[in-house]
Amino acid sequence: MTSLFLFGNFQKFVSLRGRLMIRKGKSKFLRQPIRHLDLKETQSLFDLVKNFRYTSFQSRNIFKCFEVFRKMLSDPTCVIFLGLSGAMIPGGMRRVIRDMVKMKLIDVIVSTGANVFHDIFESFGYRHYIGSEEGNDDLLRRHRIVRVYDALMDDREINQVIRLLSKVPEEVGKRVISSRQYLEVLGKRIKDEGSILKAAFQFGVPIFVPALSDSSIGIGLTFLHSQKRSSSEGLIIDQIRDSFEIAQLKRMAAVTGAIYIGGGVPKNYIQQLGPVSELLFKTESGHRYAFQITTDDPKWGGLSGCTFEEAKSWGKIEKESAHAAVYIDATIALPLLVGAILQEGKVYRKRKRRHFIWKEDRLKFIQFI
Amino acid sequence: MTSLFLFGNFQKFVSLRGRLMIRKGKSKFLRQPIRHLDLKETQSLFDLVKNFRYTSFQSRNIFKCFEVFRKMLSDPTCVIFLGLSGAMIPGGMRRVIRDMVKMKLIDVIVSTGANVFHDIFESFGYRHYIGSEEGNDDLLRRHRIVRVYDALMDDREINQVIRLLSKVPEEVGKRVISSRQYLEVLGKRIKDEGSILKAAFQFGVPIFVPALSDSSIGIGLTFLHSQKRSSSEGLIIDQIRDSFEIAQLKRMAAVTGAIYIGGGVPKNYIQQLGPVSELLFKTESGHRYAFQITTDDPKWGGLSGCTFEEAKSWGKIEKESAHAAVYIDATIALPLLVGAILQEGKVYRKRKRRHFIWKEDRLKFIQFI
Amino acid sequence: MTSLFLFGNFQKFVSLRGRLMIRKGKSKFLRQPIRHLDLKETQSLFDLVKNFRYTSFQSRNIFKCFEVFRKMLSDPTCVIFLGLSGAMIPGGMRRVIRDMVKMKLIDVIVSTGANVFHDIFESFGYRHYIGSEEGNDDLLRRHRIVRVYDALMDDREINQVIRLLSKVPEEVGKRVISSRQYLEVLGKRIKDEGSILKAAFQFGVPIFVPALSDSSIGIGLTFLHSQKRSSSEGLIIDQIRDSFEIAQLKRMAAVTGAIYIGGGVPKNYIQQLGPVSELLFKTESGHRYAFQITTDDPKWGGLSGCTFEEAKSWGKIEKESAHAAVYIDATIALPLLVGAILQEGKVYRKRKRRHFIWKEDRLKFIQFI
Amino acid sequence: MTSLFLFGNFQKFVSLRGRLMIRKGKSKFLRQPIRHLDLKETQSLFDLVKNFRYTSFQSRNIFKCFEVFRKMLSDPTCVIFLGLSGAMIPGGMRRVIRDMVKMKLIDVIVSTGANVFHDIFESFGYRHYIGSEEGNDDLLRRHRIVRVYDALMDDREINQVIRLLSKVPEEVGKRVISSRQYLEVLGKRIKDEGSILKAAFQFGVPIFVPALSDSSIGIGLTFLHSQKRSSSEGLIIDQIRDSFEIAQLKRMAAVTGAIYIGGGVPKNYIQQLGPVSELLFKTESGHRYAFQITTDDPKWGGLSGCTFEEAKSWGKIEKESAHAAVYIDATIALPLLVGAILQEGKVYRKRKRRHFIWKEDRLKFIQFI
Repeated sequence: MTSLFLFGNFQKFVSLRGRLMIRKGKSKFLRQPIRHLDLKETQSLFDLVKNFRYTSFQSRNIFKCFEVFRKMLSDPTCVIFLGLSGAMIPGGMRRVIRDMVKMKLIDVIVSTGANVFHDIFESFGYRHYIGSEEGNDDLLRRHRIVRVYDALMDDREINQVIRLLSKVPEEVGKRVISSRQYLEVLGKRIKDEGSILKAAFQFGVPIFVPALSDSSIGIGLTFLHSQKRSSSEGLIIDQIRDSFEIAQLKRMAAVTGAIYIGGGVPKNYIQQLGPVSELLFKTESGHRYAFQITTDDPKWGGLSGCTFEEAKSWGKIEKESAHAAVYIDATIALPLLVGAILQEGKVYRKRKRRHFIWKEDRLKFIQFI
Repeated sequence: MTSLFLFGNFQKFVSLRGRLMIRKGKSKFLRQPIRHLDLKETQSLFDLVKNFRYTSFQSRNIFKCFEVFRKMLSDPTCVIFLGLSGAMIPGGMRRVIRDMVKMKLIDVIVSTGANVFHDIFESFGYRHYIGSEEGNDDLLRRHRIVRVYDALMDDREINQVIRLLSKVPEEVGKRVISSRQYLEVLGKRIKDEGSILKAAFQFGVPIFVPALSDSSIGIGLTFLHSQKRSSSEGLIIDQIRDSFEIAQLKRMAAVTGAIYIGGGVPKNYIQQLGPVSELLFKTESGHRYAFQITTDDPKWGGLSGCTFEEAKSWGKIEKESAHAAVYIDATIALPLLVGAILQEGKVYRKRKRRHFIWKEDRLKFIQFI
Repeated sequence: MTSLFLFGNFQKFVSLRGRLMIRKGKSKFLRQPIRHLDLKETQSLFDLVKNFRYTSFQSRNIFKCFEVFRKMLSDPTCVIFLGLSGAMIPGGMRRVIRDMVKMKLIDVIVSTGANVFHDIFESFGYRHYIGSEEGNDDLLRRHRIVRVYDALMDDREINQVIRLLSKVPEEVGKRVISSRQYLEVLGKRIKDEGSILKAAFQFGVPIFVPALSDSSIGIGLTFLHSQKRSSSEGLIIDQIRDSFEIAQLKRMAAVTGAIYIGGGVPKNYIQQLGPVSELLFKTESGHRYAFQITTDDPKWGGLSGCTFEEAKSWGKIEKESAHAAVYIDATIALPLLVGAILQEGKVYRKRKRRHFIWKEDRLKFIQFI
Repeated sequence: MTSLFLFGNFQKFVSLRGRLMIRKGKSKFLRQPIRHLDLKETQSLFDLVKNFRYTSFQSRNIFKCFEVFRKMLSDPTCVIFLGLSGAMIPGGMRRVIRDMVKMKLIDVIVSTGANVFHDIFESFGYRHYIGSEEGNDDLLRRHRIVRVYDALMDDREINQVIRLLSKVPEEVGKRVISSRQYLEVLGKRIKDEGSILKAAFQFGVPIFVPALSDSSIGIGLTFLHSQKRSSSEGLIIDQIRDSFEIAQLKRMAAVTGAIYIGGGVPKNYIQQLGPVSELLFKTESGHRYAFQITTDDPKWGGLSGCTFEEAKSWGKIEKESAHAAVYIDATIALPLLVGAILQEGKVYRKRKRRHFIWKEDRLKFIQFI
């Protein structure tokens, strides 16, 4: 009897024993076996995300984010904040984010100015175009074409939109407003059904852009500012008013969740709501749910890539919070996660919309409709 | 007539003009607009990958890899090499890779020893388990449990498999063999239908592990070596014989394609086939198709992360080759790409299997069945 | 005569031929050989950076940044902007940045609010502490200690500083000011010689924080805002005024340079000065010199990691600009680069300080002292 | 008395209190304050590395690696293994590594074949050249110039060296040898004082290349193999013999340390010595000291980027081992670390050289000279 024969028999024996051991739970550490992804049973986006539960590394993190997402959607009192960084509109994610607004997957947005500008830009019928990351940028410049990695835009169209935007403040009628109020005015005027800003206006999702000056919208406002005759005229976007408004949102919501696409100001701004609440309202109130899609990393020490564990030390998320992070380009993870939620259907369909009733810079109450 | 009125009208006007411009092709650089991913039309994995054609950044690169994959599968003469690095079995990708073998998506594998070992390990009925990346490793060590990031294994089971593997050489009957021949012997003995090694044996897909000593399989062979009485006895895995065998494969294949999961020795070994061919057979023969799934980056100067453009300077890929790279965890990209290929169906079903007829270390011919 | 003998002789022959070839310039591509770093001749930081000229990968990029740095310092008309992101004060870089201000290596700062807050925090005698990235964050929270990766702070001290900061606006006397003016008021009051803010005030280096609300300074101001009785009282930080002020700086400077530590708002804000100038002043004016220390990457499509080539397509940097980027943690690269500049001495000593003479939000002129 | 006055006084008060608190140790978590790097006191590489002790993020990790390096050098019984991956010779690090051999900073090398080949290549008087990462690779190919990121080589010179190397085996006189023995034969013949291989031979530092076939050296041997008339002739590099030899090294050394430049086979091969020892010699023996310079990351699940904590679960490093990792391009970190060790002087000068006395594939003893 050769060892090879034993080899064969041993396989059967161990295989049986393996199954037994799983049932008996041979070690508390070794309870749940990895289940190798079976593509026959993985047809839809939901299938894939669901099956990532039993794989490892970043694919399992996709599932973990999905799980947190489901939890925050299922919580009947939770208000969900979306932090939006990175070039999501040149990235082709405009409709996915619009759908998040429309399908009640998020209640409040904090964004970079760029994402809002690119959304407005497309609302005018202008387009982003497929380009290459190895473009000849001197040549592009000569043709007045600008590049966002492997996407392209017509610079004259950008300037056209900036000029039109700089007309808006004349119509606002107020002197000092928050970015939220300003973006509401813009959203109201947009006709394009594909627009995030329009959908946000329609469905009552406030958009905050704390660093509005840091974008083409801000460039338009700066142009206007430069033409003011005296310092007592002209519109003022009061960023501290934004902070006060969003702090009230945090306070009035019994429970909050946070979704971060990238980091930057939007992430930090939503994260600091815990410390803000402590100072303003003497209540500890970190987020109860949080997940992040990022390509940054904790090891560089910056806020964009920092972990939710670190956030616990600050009271930015609750001690018992559900949280997850996946390290991946958002243009891949976002469609997977949102697609899986929509395909599963159950969770989000039951969710009520949160309506925020403002009087000036004071939040009066939150309606659940 | 206010500017806001103009604002509204302008949107319609521009929208029309935008559509016209697209038709007229206002600039040679701005031909193909970004199409924002529509989740309503994105149900399956194939839908997603197909729709990534018109998004940007790494999602578009997923599509580009898919396109290269389709091209290599469609080429009736192309022989496809898979370079396999990273902990794909603990990662839950065993079945996906097995399916790649079974469904004729690849013809030759070059792997790290670890991937082959983990496959054999599961063939014995042993399992990898769900763990956490924040494990208490001292505690795990006490329980003889080993960790692969967020996956776990029982160390005693590993040792059991190493011991059994060290019996195999006694049965081989030859003194000096290639890793390919050795792994064929192992593959023949495996019963488990889920095994990559078994499928490779069944379907005639050769597996090369040039650095076999650098793995638990190698540890088993080292144990055996340590018990040899004289240096003239015992099995020798001749890595140069591997190189000679795979060089013949490259030469006899009119056209070749390469798929890299990660980098390391498997990537470099398949990449160097161009230079090898030039030296041995005086023929230039880079790969015609190549794509890579990687988390490494060109900017560190290493081979694992280097671009296919750099590879052109070496003649590792053909000047006119189709190539793409996507920067992402392979446990996410691989199911997307293979899933999309299988769901589309057309391309891979027509493909014939390549059979390699060996006589010792000489490749006699390649059959297309 | 064996081949090994030939082998030996060949070395001599080739070595000679190699030297000849270098002299004769055998190929236009192969002019400058790599010079292997010689540690005997590498004692100081300047030695190291200088010798990185002839090595490869990111070390060579360190040298390239150094070279751009020297060029911008040598240009008698250049105004240098520093974009400051990341947790540089917890990172131990406070004194290095203070020295950049003091030694005339930079003329204008655009920063995240956090960096300014951490600087003020230390001005009060409070300290950041050595911690571990694997901290028990629940425990830290119980002790009211907050974590920034592997650095720690006392949360009560943070709150103490926030409270004190919220007293400052009462003293300002104006209603609507820019962040630059507000930070000047703070800088004037700081006694601590180690402070960046104090040095900036002393040496006339303006600091802009466009997203001031997104920081603990903003939290203090929000606290104040929440206590206002009517919307017509209280201080307003007008971010558009910031944009207008910095746009004038860009315009009045014949030539500009940009140094980016990290990305985020500070980078984008300095980068957009080119497009801003085009719109406001009808002049093309990208930066002539620019270098970036970053851990982000172009391939994710975001602005933080985007290349200076891409910036050319936007007119953010000049077509003929000198630019470089190095991919590395700034706590390593910044001391190397600034240290090398200071050790070399020649370039920075000759440089004159730029003084900006403001009247309200209007820049009157720039003095070179 | 205004609050601003208080603000000023408070600074003095807190500053005093701060100093007191530090002395009294107000919290066990807040013992050691960050010390902001002072460039005046940071002239040499040793100064910089030493001062990184009190900064954060990756700079502190540089110090931690330095500390581990010092510990392993100070341990009178420790044998130090260097794992060498990445394109270190094109990177300009040849002399630094040669100095590590010469100055007794390492005792054993495990390398990729490429690093050894590039070293031999330069021994012939050939050179690597400064290039650009944006090379036109089709043009380079036409000129037979190959690219390694931003370094260049002449392809004809590479082929010349491969051809010469393929002559060597005729002289070896043995049939089956380890890569260590083969590289000793090569090292003996090299005249160039700058060569790592020569220095290794001179000073008795064994070099193992377990995946020798995966390199240009392997290409040369494959060429030779292809010309063999029968399978019983020609040289065989027995990789399992390598494993057996290096396992004995591990066993005979009371204590071991590991330095990893990059990951790949060299890291895994040195890491697996613990498990190998357990199987072969029934003794637990992880490394007592280990540090890694890497640009990979644990989160992808691969071995190249995995943490030393994970390694503990495998018994690859000792439970009480000193270990550190720094995430940075090795062409920057290596000169810093080795430079600091050489400048400090004390530690390495006292170190004795380890001499390994072999008889065939058996290690007889280790001498400390």
